[in-house]
Amino acid sequence: MAYISLPEGLPGIRGLMAFRPETARPMNDFIETLLHGPHTLTPGERELIGTYVSYLNDCYYCQTCHGYIAAACLNGDEELVKRVKADFQHADISEKLKALLVIAGKVQKSGKSVTAEDVAQARAAEASDLEIHDTVLISAAFCMFNRYVDGLGTWQPRDEAMYRERGKRIARDGYVFISQEYLPAETVAK
Amino acid sequence: MAYISLPEGLPGIRGLMAFRPETARPMNDFIETLLHGPHTLTPGERELIGTYVSYLNDCYYCQTCHGYIAAACLNGDEELVKRVKADFQHADISEKLKALLVIAGKVQKSGKSVTAEDVAQARAAEASDLEIHDTVLISAAFCMFNRYVDGLGTWQPRDEAMYRERGKRIARDGYVFISQEYLPAETVAK
Repeated sequence: MAYISLPEGLPGIRGLMAFRPETARPMNDFIETLLHGPHTLTPGERELIGTYVSYLNDCYYCQTCHGYIAAACLNGDEELVKRVKADFQHADISEKLKALLVIAGKVQKSGKSVTAEDVAQARAAEASDLEIHDTVLISAAFCMFNRYVDGLGTWQPRDEAMYRERGKRIARDGYVFISQEYLPAETVAK
Repeated sequence: MAYISLPEGLPGIRGLMAFRPETARPMNDFIETLLHGPHTLTPGERELIGTYVSYLNDCYYCQTCHGYIAAACLNGDEELVKRVKADFQHADISEKLKALLVIAGKVQKSGKSVTAEDVAQARAAEASDLEIHDTVLISAAFCMFNRYVDGLGTWQPRDEAMYRERGKRIARDGYVFISQEYLPAETVAK
């Protein structure tokens, strides 16, 4: 049971966002832009970074939710998502994404863990400044979301089918659209 | 020197936000609502929580910037800000704020560090669900901002007078208004 009284039936961050729509609205705008906005990294690659960081932070809800969003963005390749979490250096992803995942893993520990060498390796794998910037920000953002979801002891049902279905919907419709389900209309409209 | 090419002359998060206004806009909306929006905790109390977490994360830019915003919100009491960072249990703040700072410190480590006992102690000190929620989210948010600022190796000048002046201006005008200085107008207007 969560540490505070939340609307019933809404797992993970959804219950928190319904409880506090004033902060939920800009958070959804932010994550929509960061993960699914126009970019040289695909939404699937960016969701993999978020999934990997959530795995490092041991947040069941976020790693499962975003793992299925990532899979939905990657033609349903759930095995790739598992491989990235367990051993990304041997996963079937680009050298650039591997170098970015190294940076994301450093940021998960602390901002100061990132070295000039980590960044040079990403650049050698042809990562752009924007890709390096967004990798750091995605990792940092999931360090926020993971702490938010776990720090308030939210309900995190072990129902993979539910996460899979939701992952497909978020991949298709996006965070802001989906949030209309549980946020008051006036806080969603921009 | 930062790890990526940023606009010159903008320290800390400002250079990053000018580099990536698309994510900066919702981040500023979010932090404005979370720290300075209508609430039973004063902006000064909320800025103290953010300052304390930034201190724990050893982020010079954020702890200095938000420390001076907190001081400006607290009638210029810079000594109180220093005391909260060094030893908040003996600072001249409410028992409720002390209990919330305990929770914030747990979240800084990980979301899973927070215990039902921590929350019960905050409730015994008359903290509301909203205050507990926002404390967790403020701590989580600074775990993002601190990693963002340090993870990209931003320029963080050691000029206390600059931070003091800026702290006064943000306390007075808010994050969204101030961001017009370095964000393109079309990304600030809501």
